[in-house]
Amino acid sequence: MAKFYGIGTGPGDSELLTVKGKKTLEMIDCLYTPEPKKKGKSLALSIVSPYLPETLEIKQRHFPMVNDLSEKENAWNDIANEILEEVKAGKNVGFITLGDPMVYSTYSYLLERLSDHIETETIPGISSFCSMSNALQIPLVMDEETYSVVPATASENVINTALETFSTVIIMKVSIELPKIKKLLEEKGLLASSVLISNASMEDEKIIMGLEDLDETERISYFSTIIVYKTRKI
Amino acid sequence: MAKFYGIGTGPGDSELLTVKGKKTLEMIDCLYTPEPKKKGKSLALSIVSPYLPETLEIKQRHFPMVNDLSEKENAWNDIANEILEEVKAGKNVGFITLGDPMVYSTYSYLLERLSDHIETETIPGISSFCSMSNALQIPLVMDEETYSVVPATASENVINTALETFSTVIIMKVSIELPKIKKLLEEKGLLASSVLISNASMEDEKIIMGLEDLDETERISYFSTIIVYKTRKI
Repeated sequence: MAKFYGIGTGPGDSELLTVKGKKTLEMIDCLYTPEPKKKGKSLALSIVSPYLPETLEIKQRHFPMVNDLSEKENAWNDIANEILEEVKAGKNVGFITLGDPMVYSTYSYLLERLSDHIETETIPGISSFCSMSNALQIPLVMDEETYSVVPATASENVINTALETFSTVIIMKVSIELPKIKKLLEEKGLLASSVLISNASMEDEKIIMGLEDLDETERISYFSTIIVYKTRKI
Repeated sequence: MAKFYGIGTGPGDSELLTVKGKKTLEMIDCLYTPEPKKKGKSLALSIVSPYLPETLEIKQRHFPMVNDLSEKENAWNDIANEILEEVKAGKNVGFITLGDPMVYSTYSYLLERLSDHIETETIPGISSFCSMSNALQIPLVMDEETYSVVPATASENVINTALETFSTVIIMKVSIELPKIKKLLEEKGLLASSVLISNASMEDEKIIMGLEDLDETERISYFSTIIVYKTRKI
């Protein structure tokens, strides 16, 4: 029976796709992918491009990144309806999403519109912070340790609780929130224990070990994450 | 130059290995793997077995699971020395570890004994809880949400803070700690929001949605994880 497949592409390096993700891309009839903000190829599409059969039909669709919820919902509804029709017509349809589909992905909004109506399957991917800690070769957690993942847009209260309670704290989507995050890390004396990584596993990956000298007004990549290693030497 | 490669196998399904992990297994000269506790094949080895060249030399080594730190350290030293000699002699050596190498893996102890002496590379893997949320198709985090990962052996205080502060809480290595965890979830009224998964992505995977009726004295698999979804209907 035809199905809808959500596929996590991993963080950037094409080889960090799973074997299952690769096999799925080779068998589907049609692939949906988020349209890039600027002209050019979508990042998710670049990652999987080595595995796509030449004949695969690719449909880029625009997901508005705006504050207006109804504008976003309209787009999700339209794209979900389009996918629904294709799967009902017997096509196996894929959708690619950066990192892991269950971690901060717009894919969730498509899935909740589809899963009651057609068969769906979701294939995990490597999260950017996971790839980062492997590239650094500094363990996220050992033995009795704990870690937490917070978006930089979370409240100061939540970020402070995370920094106080957990061995390792991952702060995602840093971007324009860098001044706030730098202030919170400074207050806790954690700047020297923090690593900033932009564009993890990509060709233009950038790693800053220790954030004491980082200019917080610097414009950093949209794909920037901080790992705070409270219990390691970095 | 010869290298030491740590490879995350993912949670259990062979197809959840990364393409990079697969390619590395195909090119190394020798593979080290933890010896199973009982006789039979190691789980990590079963996961990667579809990709291993017939001629690949496989060395199972015993990692003692005991409280005596010096016994464990002796074993890590011996295995690290053996690997060191092989890499120095020009062999590319691999080591496989369940899930992701940077998340609760004994691999960390080998790596810290090797990384100053030889070239090392670590290849990420899908963590069991990540595979679980994808199998359930229930997002771990959306938008401003947060999640945390704690071992069931952590203090009640840490687990309670996690349950109070984060949208989603992943409790790993539940096993014999089930009575304690069930009590903490009950106190917070979170039993109905919790999912227990044993042997994620394996053939004998077992999923219990909502833990109100779970007998906490039941013997559960060593590979059991609870996801507490505070903000989702499960």
